[in-house]
Amino acid sequence: MSTASDSNDREEGLKFQPKFDASGLVTCVATDAGTGEVLMVAHMNAEALRKTIESGDAWYFSRSRNVLWRKGETSGHTQRVVEMRLDCDQDAVWIKVEQTGAACHTGRRSCFYRAVDNGESGAALSFVD
Amino acid sequence: MSTASDSNDREEGLKFQPKFDASGLVTCVATDAGTGEVLMVAHMNAEALRKTIESGDAWYFSRSRNVLWRKGETSGHTQRVVEMRLDCDQDAVWIKVEQTGAACHTGRRSCFYRAVDNGESGAALSFVD
Repeated sequence: MSTASDSNDREEGLKFQPKFDASGLVTCVATDAGTGEVLMVAHMNAEALRKTIESGDAWYFSRSRNVLWRKGETSGHTQRVVEMRLDCDQDAVWIKVEQTGAACHTGRRSCFYRAVDNGESGAALSFVD
Repeated sequence: MSTASDSNDREEGLKFQPKFDASGLVTCVATDAGTGEVLMVAHMNAEALRKTIESGDAWYFSRSRNVLWRKGETSGHTQRVVEMRLDCDQDAVWIKVEQTGAACHTGRRSCFYRAVDNGESGAALSFVD
């Protein structure tokens, strides 16, 4: 059972106790350590988190392929972690990375290559890269 | 059924077709439009997305409280959206915001107020704010 005391400990303490969702994952945001640009949003399971912290290379868990993977292991587009942060309730991590090449599988530097604006008939997308 | 053609359209097209998860949500990363700092990670359902796009104020869906809420509606700590981006597979959004006051419910500017380092006996946290 989760209690107020658990919650306070998780939020105000210095004990690493990630709060995984029902699938055993936390959300990870990777930003470019130089520019601050958000490069991608992905997920980590306990093993991906551990490997990332221990190795300094970003590891993720792919929900679609159901596998653990080291970012760039096939593409060479690795992410070197400069800093890792954890959010208040420990269910999201933010890594600042040195990105080699493209973070996005489409070949773009960032996955966030489209802007959303309020168009006349609803949301309108436009390319920003 | 999801096809390769659907996937290509979603990734390379300009049609807004967010990919909601089984709970009807997409992930949202909010960064400070001035500093680039990641302020928080939260979720939006279709209605929160629509309201955010139409109003320019950040709306979220709280998984713990199971309600739609406008950021700052009780605290006054609103987020004015300067730019919204959508990622490749349209299941994550990035908003650059002008944050009034604290983004975090703990009163801190950002939810990411602790760093994670590789300590001698596993992950070690430290406060950065």
